[in-house]
Amino acid sequence: MGTGSPARCAAIIGTGLIGQGWAIVFARKGWDVRLYDVNAAMLAEARSLILQQLRELETQGLLEDASGIIERVHVAGSLADAVKGASYIQENSPEKVEIKRALFTELDAVAEPDAVIGSSTSSIPASQFTEHLPGRHRCLVAHPVNPPYLIPVVELCPAPWTSPQALDAAREAMTAIGQKPVLVRREIEGFILNRLQGALLHEAFRLAKAGIASAEDIDVTVKDGLGLRWSFMGPFETIDLNAPGGIADYCARYGGLYESIGADQGECVAWDGALVAALEDERRGLLPQEDLAKRRFWRDEKLMRLMRHKQENGDNNG
Amino acid sequence: MGTGSPARCAAIIGTGLIGQGWAIVFARKGWDVRLYDVNAAMLAEARSLILQQLRELETQGLLEDASGIIERVHVAGSLADAVKGASYIQENSPEKVEIKRALFTELDAVAEPDAVIGSSTSSIPASQFTEHLPGRHRCLVAHPVNPPYLIPVVELCPAPWTSPQALDAAREAMTAIGQKPVLVRREIEGFILNRLQGALLHEAFRLAKAGIASAEDIDVTVKDGLGLRWSFMGPFETIDLNAPGGIADYCARYGGLYESIGADQGECVAWDGALVAALEDERRGLLPQEDLAKRRFWRDEKLMRLMRHKQENGDNNG
Repeated sequence: MGTGSPARCAAIIGTGLIGQGWAIVFARKGWDVRLYDVNAAMLAEARSLILQQLRELETQGLLEDASGIIERVHVAGSLADAVKGASYIQENSPEKVEIKRALFTELDAVAEPDAVIGSSTSSIPASQFTEHLPGRHRCLVAHPVNPPYLIPVVELCPAPWTSPQALDAAREAMTAIGQKPVLVRREIEGFILNRLQGALLHEAFRLAKAGIASAEDIDVTVKDGLGLRWSFMGPFETIDLNAPGGIADYCARYGGLYESIGADQGECVAWDGALVAALEDERRGLLPQEDLAKRRFWRDEKLMRLMRHKQENGDNNG
Repeated sequence: MGTGSPARCAAIIGTGLIGQGWAIVFARKGWDVRLYDVNAAMLAEARSLILQQLRELETQGLLEDASGIIERVHVAGSLADAVKGASYIQENSPEKVEIKRALFTELDAVAEPDAVIGSSTSSIPASQFTEHLPGRHRCLVAHPVNPPYLIPVVELCPAPWTSPQALDAAREAMTAIGQKPVLVRREIEGFILNRLQGALLHEAFRLAKAGIASAEDIDVTVKDGLGLRWSFMGPFETIDLNAPGGIADYCARYGGLYESIGADQGECVAWDGALVAALEDERRGLLPQEDLAKRRFWRDEKLMRLMRHKQENGDNNG
């Protein structure tokens, strides 16, 4: 960035939507980015798709100089070329353990000795595809949310053999690019984010199944209620501020109510059959199938405006 | 309002924080508001506390003419005076079933024949304090979130004997004042909002107890992850847009993962003992006890700015 020190370099392996998102996140913070994908057609179009997203972010006031940023994004001719000189490597292949196992074997063989290798997997613990590697100590999960250039959290989940140094390096890289790393201390199904989302979704499914509320009203309860505070405070800070004496006071006052509710929330509803058909019916009544794509643009624009709002309000200092 | 039709009138019974919030919500939409509280000292200061909050909202650009709005807020000399001419009555007494039972008996006796009476209770179903009333058909729960002038959702929960007309009238009143009513079709502990919040909190407590993540990282996962989308979409719309074919497609793709996670989320953690002590320790390390009040101002300002942002972005049409 003109400070005299050379730009840091990241390799993005797998250039679908998530890989493109990672490229943006690194490049906009001044890193050199090398792209590679075994699918030549996907690799060939990745750079122009990234530029398209950069321009959209520029239009929304979320970054400057899309043209300068894309200059830092390079297409590599091979996996070995991609990782040469890269201190951080992010893998974004399909969610199949065999694919990841083979790819990590290749990556570990060609990566720089001190490079850290993160996987974008949302569901496969790193121990399932790195155990056999000589360099397994430098492998871990770095699970982003899509799109990572708008949603900053990244779940870092080490395998039992991931070294503290590799974990620190991954955390440092994520912080350097402006993401928000959180540590999943032990491998657990769904990591943290999807476990929290799943817990809320399960209750939403139970309420819908029991006929207590419509899907639309459950959505309103979150977007015009719970989700407002949760967009700038987490659940613990929320309750910490919701009783005069803080979180212990909150638990003393309301723990009984929540325990009583919780005793009634054990039912694990199956996400299929008549329940899902009814939810699909209700959603398609609110948003016809043919409008799904348009609504995704709406969502992304909302998200961009929200992120600009948070930037302007200095939420990072919050 | 200068439209020729007379202003509608609401009575606010109980003028603590929640009652003051309700007064603001009605008055800023042009309603005449009558305040009453059995606690004379509380009633005496209510109007000036309301004005203070109106001025803060004015400063933040969330309303105009605080001085004009406060002119519509009147202190009544008795319960009967407060409800005279009021088409909507909101009760905000302490969370004790005997208190509410006695107050609803009084209210039902003096309210206009066609007035609807809503309770702000967050935990007591209306059937527990209205069964004996001649006018029980016009009583229901209208549970707000604090502060209602910033968080618009209101849970409407009828008792088994609440008439469809009274429910419709309550819904119409809430919509008229710009709140977002949701229908809790049957009485259920915690209604919808606290059940959803409780489900997520329980998983957060489980993760903290198991040592999977710090409270701070769980908060980051929500405020820099899940909470962003949830601040303008609910959980169902979120997953509806997160698979190419919509919600049924999402359930087919990820239902297995979530069911598997869900099977592991049945443990009902007690909100006490060493777990709460550890959470309290962590929170006080992040936010000392003496800074709690200051942080609440921070939260309210964040919320005000977020609501202004949502207004400017036309979220109500979303």
